[in-house]
Amino acid sequence: MSAEAPRRILILGGVRSGKSVQAEQWAKHSTRPVTYLATARIEDEEMRIRIAHHRSTRPAHWQVVEEPVALARTLLAHAHPEGLILVDCLTLWLTNLLLDSDPQCAQREQDALLALLPSLPGTLILVSNETGLGVVPLGELTRRFCDQAGRLHQALATLCDPVLLMVAGLPIFLKGRP
Amino acid sequence: MSAEAPRRILILGGVRSGKSVQAEQWAKHSTRPVTYLATARIEDEEMRIRIAHHRSTRPAHWQVVEEPVALARTLLAHAHPEGLILVDCLTLWLTNLLLDSDPQCAQREQDALLALLPSLPGTLILVSNETGLGVVPLGELTRRFCDQAGRLHQALATLCDPVLLMVAGLPIFLKGRP
Amino acid sequence: MSAEAPRRILILGGVRSGKSVQAEQWAKHSTRPVTYLATARIEDEEMRIRIAHHRSTRPAHWQVVEEPVALARTLLAHAHPEGLILVDCLTLWLTNLLLDSDPQCAQREQDALLALLPSLPGTLILVSNETGLGVVPLGELTRRFCDQAGRLHQALATLCDPVLLMVAGLPIFLKGRP
Repeated sequence: MSAEAPRRILILGGVRSGKSVQAEQWAKHSTRPVTYLATARIEDEEMRIRIAHHRSTRPAHWQVVEEPVALARTLLAHAHPEGLILVDCLTLWLTNLLLDSDPQCAQREQDALLALLPSLPGTLILVSNETGLGVVPLGELTRRFCDQAGRLHQALATLCDPVLLMVAGLPIFLKGRP
Repeated sequence: MSAEAPRRILILGGVRSGKSVQAEQWAKHSTRPVTYLATARIEDEEMRIRIAHHRSTRPAHWQVVEEPVALARTLLAHAHPEGLILVDCLTLWLTNLLLDSDPQCAQREQDALLALLPSLPGTLILVSNETGLGVVPLGELTRRFCDQAGRLHQALATLCDPVLLMVAGLPIFLKGRP
Repeated sequence: MSAEAPRRILILGGVRSGKSVQAEQWAKHSTRPVTYLATARIEDEEMRIRIAHHRSTRPAHWQVVEEPVALARTLLAHAHPEGLILVDCLTLWLTNLLLDSDPQCAQREQDALLALLPSLPGTLILVSNETGLGVVPLGELTRRFCDQAGRLHQALATLCDPVLLMVAGLPIFLKGRP
């Protein structure tokens, strides 16, 4: 049985801000068995190479699960009281939701995640891009993404502790402490 | 007479970062009578619906004033030593200034706000979008907006206390304390 | 001989966030002789005027050096144990590297800077734009810039202390203290 109390950790950050590295170091230093939940949809050779490279930098004994859409259901299927699940990242997941052919998909899946979070067994580390601090480019999809990402981050931040914003590989603790 | 000392509060934040909610909670917890100063120019039905929705979430006894351009004059007309004025938001106001047919308008109105601030009676809460931490998109108007917003935020930050940056609904105190 | 210990200071910030002013104030308050290293490539009259204006706001006794590409070599040529070099800014330098006709230039020059930093004599202040916290616009060059800027900032942040993020003219200390 793990000696660590289960946690909900939200790691936000910009492009190449070190958020995945921070999440992976947290998971490596945990005594819990790690499940790595990747949300990327592999659609071309460049992405396949990039993902293979990422995978080679992670411990080989981590279990890897891929799920681009049904995040809550997949979390529930793999969670257990002594485990740790690292989700990288919510940005790609939200993009997948917004591009889904079912227009109800985005709301339903986000609601399911928020409803599940308080009762999910074990530790959860969520990684997501902070994209709201620049000029929002034109384009209806981009605006919807920014709106929904901002709302989702706010809702998750009320349920998680700690909440971090990574800048230049360094954490700003928005809530809680290491 | 209000027991609270008058304050100048500047709340910055990204898209859907919780900056308006933070400002409104501050106003609700104040003992001062609240004037809500909206800077949005209502130009289409979508905006009318969005604004009506926002209004329905605010206390009905707040006085609402709409002014897209002449902010300093409007603040002066509604300020009193025991009152609180919440301006939401400076981003729309600055956009209105830059789109004004009078090219002197933007500088004149910003100068008027900065000159008025130190002597304005009562408490003032200013809400504004932080848009400077992404890639600045092409387009002369966007670049001018980013330049002027950055300069305005710097000038206001010297006059306000506290100054906050909201991320995921959580405040980073750039200056001062709650 | 200067009484201050040599330092490596990294100042990040958005558009018009006050990062250059912060760097220049640090340099002015130092007892060390200052070399100002400008990375801007002067390509048109507007830029020439803008740069002349910036220069007029800085102390006349600062030595000014211009170098758009070979940053490490220029730093080494001007560094001495009692001196202070202020580089403004890495963003323009990285842009120059990415636009260089030699495709190896960007990697080579960044590697040279990172290799030099630990042993460079004297104090160094580096100024750079944080551009990773908004939506990344389309365009291959912009994406490459954001990727490389993020990686460079992470690498520099491990070598510098303090590391600051400026917002509205106010510093968030990501690492170290004033």
